[in-house]
Amino acid sequence: MTLIEAADLPALARGCSVLGAGGGGDTQTGVLAVGQAIEQFGPVRVVDLDELPDDGLVIPCGLVGAPMVALEKVGSATEGEQLLAGLGKLIGGTVVALMPLEIGGSNGLRPIGWAVRAGLPIADADGMGRAFPKVSQVTMEIAGVDPSPSVLTEERSNLVAIWAQDGESLERIARALSIEFGGRVALAEYPMTAAQARAATARGSITLAVRIGRAMAARTHASGDPIQALERELDARRLIEGRIVDVERRMAAGFVRGAALIEGLRADSGRAVRLEIQNENLVALEGDTVRAMVPDVIVVLDSHSGEAIHTERLRYGQRVTVAAFPCNPIWRTPRGLTLTGPRAFGYEFDYVPLEQLQ
Amino acid sequence: MTLIEAADLPALARGCSVLGAGGGGDTQTGVLAVGQAIEQFGPVRVVDLDELPDDGLVIPCGLVGAPMVALEKVGSATEGEQLLAGLGKLIGGTVVALMPLEIGGSNGLRPIGWAVRAGLPIADADGMGRAFPKVSQVTMEIAGVDPSPSVLTEERSNLVAIWAQDGESLERIARALSIEFGGRVALAEYPMTAAQARAATARGSITLAVRIGRAMAARTHASGDPIQALERELDARRLIEGRIVDVERRMAAGFVRGAALIEGLRADSGRAVRLEIQNENLVALEGDTVRAMVPDVIVVLDSHSGEAIHTERLRYGQRVTVAAFPCNPIWRTPRGLTLTGPRAFGYEFDYVPLEQLQ
Repeated sequence: MTLIEAADLPALARGCSVLGAGGGGDTQTGVLAVGQAIEQFGPVRVVDLDELPDDGLVIPCGLVGAPMVALEKVGSATEGEQLLAGLGKLIGGTVVALMPLEIGGSNGLRPIGWAVRAGLPIADADGMGRAFPKVSQVTMEIAGVDPSPSVLTEERSNLVAIWAQDGESLERIARALSIEFGGRVALAEYPMTAAQARAATARGSITLAVRIGRAMAARTHASGDPIQALERELDARRLIEGRIVDVERRMAAGFVRGAALIEGLRADSGRAVRLEIQNENLVALEGDTVRAMVPDVIVVLDSHSGEAIHTERLRYGQRVTVAAFPCNPIWRTPRGLTLTGPRAFGYEFDYVPLEQLQ
Repeated sequence: MTLIEAADLPALARGCSVLGAGGGGDTQTGVLAVGQAIEQFGPVRVVDLDELPDDGLVIPCGLVGAPMVALEKVGSATEGEQLLAGLGKLIGGTVVALMPLEIGGSNGLRPIGWAVRAGLPIADADGMGRAFPKVSQVTMEIAGVDPSPSVLTEERSNLVAIWAQDGESLERIARALSIEFGGRVALAEYPMTAAQARAATARGSITLAVRIGRAMAARTHASGDPIQALERELDARRLIEGRIVDVERRMAAGFVRGAALIEGLRADSGRAVRLEIQNENLVALEGDTVRAMVPDVIVVLDSHSGEAIHTERLRYGQRVTVAAFPCNPIWRTPRGLTLTGPRAFGYEFDYVPLEQLQ
């Protein structure tokens, strides 16, 4: 077991932002929510899945919606309680840990606050190893875990339980309700035993996020380049260093969709990279050439502060470095690519691993 | 207990169409569904709520969506089973009867088919005494019955349970899911005991519908005017006899919205009445003068056949008689009018009973 104290939250948040591929929601409100929970209830207990009893229940949870909305609609501290109470009506067994459904952005933090408030540890794992737009784009889906029952709540006291015939139906139902409730709901899905979770999740995500965040801070303090930390920790590659010269962004069907154009500076002068976005950074294009693509992780770093910039915070004029790193290997399997490869997002080309594109 | 045989279905359907105020969905598919159920499982047992044990559960149910969609998306015979199985997971107690959530149109018939298939009687009552667009516009809401848990299903095997904080939230959730699933879902809501139901429903609706249907048929066979039957049975008034010269109709936010213009013929020559529609006929206007308004019931009858024409079947050129009759008195109470009076539908005038408008 590892303890996370309030002082560790900036590093955790920085790591979640990098792993989020631009998605998962801005971490500021998440840091506040977890900080408040720690202040009231003590530090976060992070447990490895191996430390949990085989038949104890591990509950993946997080927020669903458009991250643009979460900037303004911060939710209530009791969402986690509502989800647990709702699940309690529907399933037997003892919940022994919560788990982020995605480690990316705010969604890597929120479930930690909920766990602290519920007196539960957080499992050192998540359902994506990054962030993806859809609630069904999770490792549990690949492992064949039943998504049902899932429970969903919003800021008030409405609670919905869902027995979906498959992950895609769950996504449709959760998305429709997220839109109806203003673009943001809390969801617990794919309830499973710790024994199941060991083979059905991206493991070590929370400690990885903290390690990334610390390494980045160390480089920044040493006047080094924070991207060097990502190169070392995540095998990241630089795609371009430059300035954002155009951002399009709109809400469509409950997602943030858009693109950002980065023109190169210094060594990259004369080059330009276009990022295409659906909540997360999906594809980086240089002219017609794909430089990185889902499920590999594309991240935009502020060239001054070294912090990852979420898609909803991209602005004209920002000096940025775009980098990419290989995804969790589970996404490179045939089933993983069906769920999260470029064709799953409507692109008409097949996945090529980042390492082969360089 | 009364038995309804296959031969009674045309009369029942005719009555449901009249009580539906143009809404509740076309009765043809409902008649087929109930007919098939009777053929397989025997006649429908219609029971008065007084015949049921106090603590037995009565479940209001029906279809939610836009009736235009139900013309083409007929659903499956197993929806009722799915709803009952879903509720069975969530509540204790024994279900002793189903009940239409609205007696109007197909929604007066569908739950009867589900009851027959489940080996249950149908309660001689409903939640509206007519049809209304929203699932929260029910007598149970006025009586303070908790809408939760409600369960919702669609043609496939997705099941959703809803604990809504109030009827309006339930309506929002059910409507959003209805839209997501193509405009039509099945819903069971406001589960209650027979003791509760006695004081929380419009009673005698099913036998009333059959009586209306039979009286209309008798008048038609006697070459009389079927509207005379409505005058006698329901205190109906004629608003205009004429021809439909314009119909606008569109899908918006999960409802059918629109209007129809009827120009008078014969004795009504020179007059014109405009009907405004949200799934049901809401208001009949002659110039700026309101001739009838919700919650009173406005019905359009085919001048040749005497059958009520649902809003989704109104067509240019039809010869029609528009009539209106007083609603169930519960809707004329202050709480009833808050829920279903003209202001609940966005009109900026207060309710005036039909009898005072003539």
